[in-house]
Amino acid sequence: MENLRIALDAMGGDHAPEATVQGAVEALKEHEDLKITLLGDEDRIRSVLKERTYPADRLSLVPCSETIDMAEPPVAAIQKKKDSSIVRGMRMVRSGEADAFVSAGSTGAVLVGGQVLVGRLKGVERPPLGALIPTKNGMSLLVDCGANVDARPSWLVQFAEMGSIYIQKVLKKDRPTVGILNIGAEEEKGNSLVKETFPLLKADQNINFIGSVEARDVPLGLADVIVTDAFSGNIVLKMYEGTAKMLVGEVKRGLMSSLLGKIGAALAIGPLKKSLKKFDSKKYGGAPLLGLRGLVVKAHGSSDATAIRVALNQCVDFYREDVNGLIKERMEEAAKQKRELRSRESGQDS
Amino acid sequence: MENLRIALDAMGGDHAPEATVQGAVEALKEHEDLKITLLGDEDRIRSVLKERTYPADRLSLVPCSETIDMAEPPVAAIQKKKDSSIVRGMRMVRSGEADAFVSAGSTGAVLVGGQVLVGRLKGVERPPLGALIPTKNGMSLLVDCGANVDARPSWLVQFAEMGSIYIQKVLKKDRPTVGILNIGAEEEKGNSLVKETFPLLKADQNINFIGSVEARDVPLGLADVIVTDAFSGNIVLKMYEGTAKMLVGEVKRGLMSSLLGKIGAALAIGPLKKSLKKFDSKKYGGAPLLGLRGLVVKAHGSSDATAIRVALNQCVDFYREDVNGLIKERMEEAAKQKRELRSRESGQDS
Repeated sequence: MENLRIALDAMGGDHAPEATVQGAVEALKEHEDLKITLLGDEDRIRSVLKERTYPADRLSLVPCSETIDMAEPPVAAIQKKKDSSIVRGMRMVRSGEADAFVSAGSTGAVLVGGQVLVGRLKGVERPPLGALIPTKNGMSLLVDCGANVDARPSWLVQFAEMGSIYIQKVLKKDRPTVGILNIGAEEEKGNSLVKETFPLLKADQNINFIGSVEARDVPLGLADVIVTDAFSGNIVLKMYEGTAKMLVGEVKRGLMSSLLGKIGAALAIGPLKKSLKKFDSKKYGGAPLLGLRGLVVKAHGSSDATAIRVALNQCVDFYREDVNGLIKERMEEAAKQKRELRSRESGQDS
Repeated sequence: MENLRIALDAMGGDHAPEATVQGAVEALKEHEDLKITLLGDEDRIRSVLKERTYPADRLSLVPCSETIDMAEPPVAAIQKKKDSSIVRGMRMVRSGEADAFVSAGSTGAVLVGGQVLVGRLKGVERPPLGALIPTKNGMSLLVDCGANVDARPSWLVQFAEMGSIYIQKVLKKDRPTVGILNIGAEEEKGNSLVKETFPLLKADQNINFIGSVEARDVPLGLADVIVTDAFSGNIVLKMYEGTAKMLVGEVKRGLMSSLLGKIGAALAIGPLKKSLKKFDSKKYGGAPLLGLRGLVVKAHGSSDATAIRVALNQCVDFYREDVNGLIKERMEEAAKQKRELRSRESGQDS
């Protein structure tokens, strides 16, 4: 493999730049063919780097004078803050100076930047954000969970195809199952988007469609890829996070409210942690923005060094397996099929 | 108060008719002005009643020869099974023989029956299903969680108004807060439905609108009433149930996998149960179908006698506080305002 070059937003996330720089250093040690460019505040990055040893020939720094805040309106931020780490990193992917960009910063800015600055692969209607969510069975790719709120059926079909390629190549799972998020198992259930999309997915030979997945079954991991519009996908993601956080908090409060509870908790904490470890989202990497001319990964805002390292590793697999090449191929094939269908139909007309 | 007459689907739910009959007997003992009609299989109901004492003058039985299964397509079931407990119960509300109908049976059949057989109050565009969900702070009414998947902004405004009246009168909470389910806190966030509905809710003087509620904050109980379309609402409800169930299962499995875990769990189980008790949905009653000419309550399929009793009590409060009278008034007022606005506009035109 040629060297993989990743641009990393060193300023993104709650624990930047310590966590981002540390994650980069760790990833460089794991992969000898990896090059990382850190983007951000030069002084702050250098002061973190100073305390660490790293392969200096594979780690470079691009100083940026601006930062995009989490709360900033993303479109305006992308337009105005041309010297921010997000805009600079995206531009490096666009120009071919980098193969991938990773950021734990503003989701909105990453989404807008991906579309506007990096740009779509030919044939991709809308690039979706796919979240890897931990389940009882391993993990599922929930796609779209943030980019396209008012989606169309043809977009969801592409989400399913791109998501399948991703799971197959990056998570090494053969013939990944695809489900559509729905409010019942029967084919006649759903809103108009689901009803229109269902037969298209069913007819798609390129995916392993298993039908509807109800929200209550999402935590069980019944499908490898779950397609949906970004409004519903975001609700699933946030309900999952919110419910788990609230419940764990209530359990802790309940245990700590009495002596017996405290003793019991002290004894049980080991086995409990072990059993809940698989739900630690850090292990699973960031959310890939699929269908762009290059890879963009949005890491969680709360990412620590491990989460950043995993997100960087994710890019390595994506690149090694040529996921974008496969997506391009798939999209071109679909476009060709559509053209043939159209010319056959117009042939029948005349 | 005049006698309140409730028709109860004795055959609905996983534990019918034992749980339904027992719940009815308990509710009759609590309310001396309550009359209940049990609908369903005569022999089975009588065999449960035989073992119990109850005020026979306030408990009657209407034998029904048919049952609507959970999996049956609801529209066809409602049309064909005219002697089912659901159809008979709905017809009793329609004809004025009963004030309310409670069922733990097929949600689809209850929704279709409510619309088709009971009918809407004048001015109500679409009757929504409102679920009472337990939260860290008490409970919230999630409306719509099952009836109208492709909703319009004006429907959501009515959901907010009807939901507010319900919470104020049945749960005795003054000026209940109303939020719209959204994927971000800012006003410009959301899909087109949310963006169009937001300013209408903001301008509505009849409700206490507090803006967007993100899915992750639903378990915290940030708003008393959360309005949304039924597709998103159902996802929230099912993710809540599914995540809690899966996590509790994983915690149990984790604890039971080791001796220390088992001992710890045995010690901590008391305090833990106490702290999680408030999330027991049985305490909160069933899901009211709002805006109908009479009250229809959908109880959970897994309802035990307590859940049925609480759902019957819920009808008592609904009836005593004349919730439907208030909804009617509000809808008429809104229609009047609309007419005035229209005539003023046409006056300006000429």
